[in-house]
Parts: sequence; C-alpha cells; structure tokens
Amino acid sequence: MMSIGHVTPQTMHFDEPLPLRSGATLAGYDLVYETYGTLSADKRNAVLVCHALNASHHVAGNYAGQERSEGWWDNLVGPGKPLDTNTFFVIGVNNLGSCFGSTGPMSPNPATGQPWGADFPVVTVEDWVDAQARLLDRLGIARLAAILGGSLGGMQALSWTLRHPERVCDCIAVATAPNLSAQNIAFNEVARRAIITDPDFHGGHFYAHGVIPKRGLRVARMIGHITYLSDDSMEEKFGRELRAAELGYSTQDIEFQIESYLRHQGDKFSEYFDANTYLLITRALDYFDPALAFGGDLSRAFEVAKHIRFGLVSFTTDWRFSPARSRELVKALVDNRIEVSYAEIAAPHGHDAFLLDDPRYHGVLKAWFSRIAADLRQGASPRGGSDV
Amino acid sequence: MMSIGHVTPQTMHFDEPLPLRSGATLAGYDLVYETYGTLSADKRNAVLVCHALNASHHVAGNYAGQERSEGWWDNLVGPGKPLDTNTFFVIGVNNLGSCFGSTGPMSPNPATGQPWGADFPVVTVEDWVDAQARLLDRLGIARLAAILGGSLGGMQALSWTLRHPERVCDCIAVATAPNLSAQNIAFNEVARRAIITDPDFHGGHFYAHGVIPKRGLRVARMIGHITYLSDDSMEEKFGRELRAAELGYSTQDIEFQIESYLRHQGDKFSEYFDANTYLLITRALDYFDPALAFGGDLSRAFEVAKHIRFGLVSFTTDWRFSPARSRELVKALVDNRIEVSYAEIAAPHGHDAFLLDDPRYHGVLKAWFSRIAADLRQGASPRGGSDV
Repeated sequence: MMSIGHVTPQTMHFDEPLPLRSGATLAGYDLVYETYGTLSADKRNAVLVCHALNASHHVAGNYAGQERSEGWWDNLVGPGKPLDTNTFFVIGVNNLGSCFGSTGPMSPNPATGQPWGADFPVVTVEDWVDAQARLLDRLGIARLAAILGGSLGGMQALSWTLRHPERVCDCIAVATAPNLSAQNIAFNEVARRAIITDPDFHGGHFYAHGVIPKRGLRVARMIGHITYLSDDSMEEKFGRELRAAELGYSTQDIEFQIESYLRHQGDKFSEYFDANTYLLITRALDYFDPALAFGGDLSRAFEVAKHIRFGLVSFTTDWRFSPARSRELVKALVDNRIEVSYAEIAAPHGHDAFLLDDPRYHGVLKAWFSRIAADLRQGASPRGGSDV
Repeated sequence: MMSIGHVTPQTMHFDEPLPLRSGATLAGYDLVYETYGTLSADKRNAVLVCHALNASHHVAGNYAGQERSEGWWDNLVGPGKPLDTNTFFVIGVNNLGSCFGSTGPMSPNPATGQPWGADFPVVTVEDWVDAQARLLDRLGIARLAAILGGSLGGMQALSWTLRHPERVCDCIAVATAPNLSAQNIAFNEVARRAIITDPDFHGGHFYAHGVIPKRGLRVARMIGHITYLSDDSMEEKFGRELRAAELGYSTQDIEFQIESYLRHQGDKFSEYFDANTYLLITRALDYFDPALAFGGDLSRAFEVAKHIRFGLVSFTTDWRFSPARSRELVKALVDNRIEVSYAEIAAPHGHDAFLLDDPRYHGVLKAWFSRIAADLRQGASPRGGSDV
C-alpha cells in the first residue's frame, strides 16, 4: 500500500443561492475540496467522503512541505488501500459552516463585509448534502459509485440516500446513528454552553474583539474526547496513572495522566478550531432526524432508497453511537427489503475506532469496495438501476 | 411511615488540630450535624450517614417554616422507614470543605481573617472520616451499629471500615466504587476546568471580588447531571422532545427539552453551591483509592475489616459507578471471607437511583437494618466483637 503523496485542495465558487432548511438562503458560497485518483471516462467511479465534526476536505495524502499533514482517513484511502484510488475517484469536501476553507462564520458576510460570526445561517446535514450535490454537478458526476462517511459523516451518507437517491449506488455509513439520543444532545449542549458563556465569545462576534473563546473551546473538546473513547480504552490507556511519583494534593494542578491528556487535547483544539463552527456542527448533529417527517417511522423514511445497497459498521465499545443505533438503521432497511450488510466490529477503542485501522474493520470495507469495483468493471450500471 | 418532622442542625467546634492526608493540618474546625431518633443508654444504636457530592448533614426531616426542605434521604430515614428512627439514632454530618456549615473555603482563614477560598487545604475521604470519628467521640459513641453512605458517601462508609474498623459493626455502601475510573476522573477534571477557567473564579478568591464563577458552576453541574442519569432514563424522560412546536434553528436558544432541563439544573446549582467546595469534593473523589497502599490489591486493603458485616447495593443502569465496581468490592470482601450481602438492583434511573425509593432497593435496606436491630435487641455486642 502506498500513500497518495502530495495533494492540493481546490475551491469551487457557487453563485446560485442555496435555500437552507431553516428557511434562510445562502446567496453564494465556496466549497473547498480535494480529489484522489482519476475520474473514469464514464464518470461512474466517484466516491464522495463526508467528514465528521472537526475534520475537513483533507481526507488523504499530505501537503508538500508540511510534516505530519496526512489526511484524517489516510489509512483508508489510497492506492491499494480499502478505498483504492487506483480504482476510484475519491472526493473529500469541506462542509458549509466549517473553519477550514468552505464558506462559514469566519468568511465575510456580504451584507457587512465583516466575518459572519454568529450570524452565519444554521446549516443542517441536508443542506450540506445539497451543497455537495451541486459540486458533483460541476464535476459532471451524475451518480456516485458510493457515498461514504463515519459518525456525522455517516449521517450525511444516509441523508444522500434520502435526498438524492437516484445519485447513489452504494452507501457506506460507519459508527453513525439515525438521530442523536437525549444524552448525545446533552453533551453537545454542555459544550455549546461552555463556548457561549465564555466572556471572550462576545455573542459570536469575537473576531472583532481580537479574542478567541479558548476557555469554552477547551472544555467543549475535553467533553468530546471523553465521549470518543470507550471507558475501557481510557482505563487501559490512562487508568489512575499519576503524572508525578507523589500526589501533589491540588485541585488545580494535574495529578493524573488522563487530566494531562484532556488538557492537551483541549489546548490544541482551541488553537485551530472556530467557536462558531463548533456550535453550528453540533447543532447539525442535533437536528438530523430523517424519521421526523414520517412521524418517527424510520422505515418509511428509507422507502425512497430501495435500489441502494448499504454497508453499515458499528463498534462494540462505541457508547456515543452504539451498535444499537446502527441496528435501528438495519431494521429500517430490512423493513424495506433493501440490501444491507452490517458489521458489528469488536473493537476496544470506542467511537474513535472509525478512524483507526482495525484489520477486521478495514477488511470489511475493502470487501465492500471490491464488490463495488467489480460492479463497475462489469460495465452494467451499478446496482441495476438505469443511467441518469 | 411518618416523617421525622422538624429538625435543627447543631454545630460542634473542635480545637484539636486535624492532621490531613496531604501533610497539612487544620488547626481547628466546626462540624455541622443533625441527629434523628434517640441514642440508647448503652449508646450502641448509632448509625452515621455520610453524604455525597452536593448534599449535607440534612439527611432527613425538614426545617420549621421552610417548605420543601426535606432532607436528601428523607425517603429512607424516619419512623418506620428502612432506616427506622424508632430503633436507631441516626447522625448526618456535613463534611469539612463543604459550603453548608462545616468549616470550608467560605469560612475565615485564621491567618488572614478572610475566607479561605482556594487556600483551604485539600481534604480526602480519609480526612472526613477522621473528623467524623472525633464527632462520635464527643457524642460518646464508641462504636457504630452501622455506617451508611451512597456514591461518595459510600466511599466514606468503606473508608470507615478501613481506618476505624473497631468502631463499625455493619457497613452499608450504595452505588459506590473502590476508586474512580479514568473516565470518572476525566468528567471531574472537565468540570473543574470549567470552574477554574471562569474569569470570575479569580484563582479561587472570588469572594473578595464580589462575584461568583457561575458560568463554570453551571457547566460543571450540567456535566454531572448527564452522568447521574442513565442513557435510557434520559431518553425516556426527554428523548428528542422539542420545547416549541417548531424548530427555531438556533445554536444559542433552547430547542430540545433536555437542554432546558440541563440549563435549569446548572442555573439552580450555581446559585447555592460554592465553587471551591466543588473542586475540593471532586478531588476527594479522585484521590480515594484504598488499594493504592497495597500495590493495588483491594483484598489486602480489606484485611483489617474482617469482623465487619457488609451490605452493598448497585443499580444496573448506573454507568458512573457501575455494578462491576461493586462486584470488585464483593470480591475483595469474599477473598477475606468477610460476610457480605450484595444486591444488584434492576433500576432504570442510573446513578440517581440511590436517592430514589425503588421498593426493591428500600426493601433490601430495610431487611439489613432489621437484622442489625435484631442484633441490638439480642443484647450481645453486635457482630460478636468485644466492646471497645
């Protein structure tokens, strides 16, 4: 397996206004994206990868002159890797509202010339998917060989099959859920309150004050990290290990290694992540609930996706999006006699497992993508549908 | 079952310096306590109840002229209740470092005349137990019929059996653990960071600035509440229920009922709880680890408690102190051939269950206390030990 090597992000500008689920409209916007591999002449080998909370378009490869700049799913995407760029044309796209290049709260608000800040319209998973669809239009891709995502990215993958089912052959959704539980929303809300009540937040217009609500961002990230790791893996990795040989008996200094780890993660995050983006993305998670329009009936929501083939993966120790949540999805698909493969991977790493290269997990994804590649080679329109 | 009725807290002053585990010494201190029932002539019917994080000496009964002032374990303690005050003399005592009357960060530091604030010495579960033992000395109680506590109070009950085993006949410890896991410490640390990084904390000397770090306290309490409830009970109680009929599409306003609940809990808490006390009490939780002095061997730690009878209770949905943690305690006791009854109660309410009056749970406690009462009636020194 080889690395993709150096990659370069690109920017696509859209003038056509994007109507958002909230009722607001985004007049124009940029999407930043990267591609890996080669789009085939018939343009049927494209795989779109959707990112999760703090990631971006930079899925794989690295940036020239930047050490340790590998993409967040570099272990999965590349020549000979489970999502093989010798076969597939892979697209990573940064979502609207992000702080990594696509139009978001740090971008200038056309009405004022100042950063949007907290005035950036609330975006949803559905809005992201609609914006991504326009990017595919521009790239001349009518239908995706596959849509792929993990966690919040998995929600986008699912949403693709509901909003643009005719444009998806296969959907692979990892460590995701049909909606957030009350507990999931609760953790998001605490993180948001930590940011919003940070005096440096200034109602979301902190850019003008030359400050960053780092205190809130740190707390938000620390809470996030607790939910990404399993209880067991945290115990194995840190347990009650002390930082020093002796206890210092202090409420403010670090005593335990787990404290040091969390503070470090919080500090790092507060240096690079935008507070308004964090609010927007956690809200997009909260709002995602495709069954809502069907009176809570998830099976009815998936009726439109009957021709799509699904691959779902969950991890046994993931308590953020537990296997039970993936099984809800499997049931809704099976209720519709939709073809679905489901892999429940025994992995100790909790939610984070979707980013790691557990051989069973990657083996499953490799098998699924090999099957999709075989469909492509057969020349028949994948999944038996008619060309669009 | 009747209520105890009106109760009145009392204050006991101690001039004798208390050496603390940290190496510091508390020169003198007050303990606030309440008692219910009547101490028998032989003074052998005393039960000490230890409190958890945000509770106090006010275990049962209510205060004259104050509506809804029932003690935190009023459903358990009273005439005809599982811990029957017709039989037992029950003592509730507020711990050192608290903000409810016993000497703590809000008390004047004798060296300065100003509130101790962050300079109040770090106290541990062991320090609390030693201070409680002196209160018993003053009350003329040589040996407790039982020591009782839940959660952090359970840790104190366990610590009593290790530090003063000759003074305990029965130990009843509910929803507790032999130490905190890495995840438990992690949640404490995030809560502490939220408080300490609140600009109104002023390094713990906020009293002098006329402010209170309410933002941090709110976040800390919200995190706490998530861990007190089970995922399932939160789902059942709140689910994805919206506050209004329509979504508002806002990152800052309340959309879901769970958000409203958490904010309300956070607001309430920030009005009455002291920030320095919160830091001290979470640290006491972190430090508790009786096996540490025995190279991590919990069984060896309990060797000194061979003559004590234990009753342990855990709740199936408690993910803060899960049944597995109580089973670790059972194993350590059984390794020592110590008499132990263990009840794992199927209850949906998570950690909070120890405060609720689930009939199976209260039935178990009633049975245990009836047995202790029978031992007292037999006149023999309870548990066959010699009088001290």
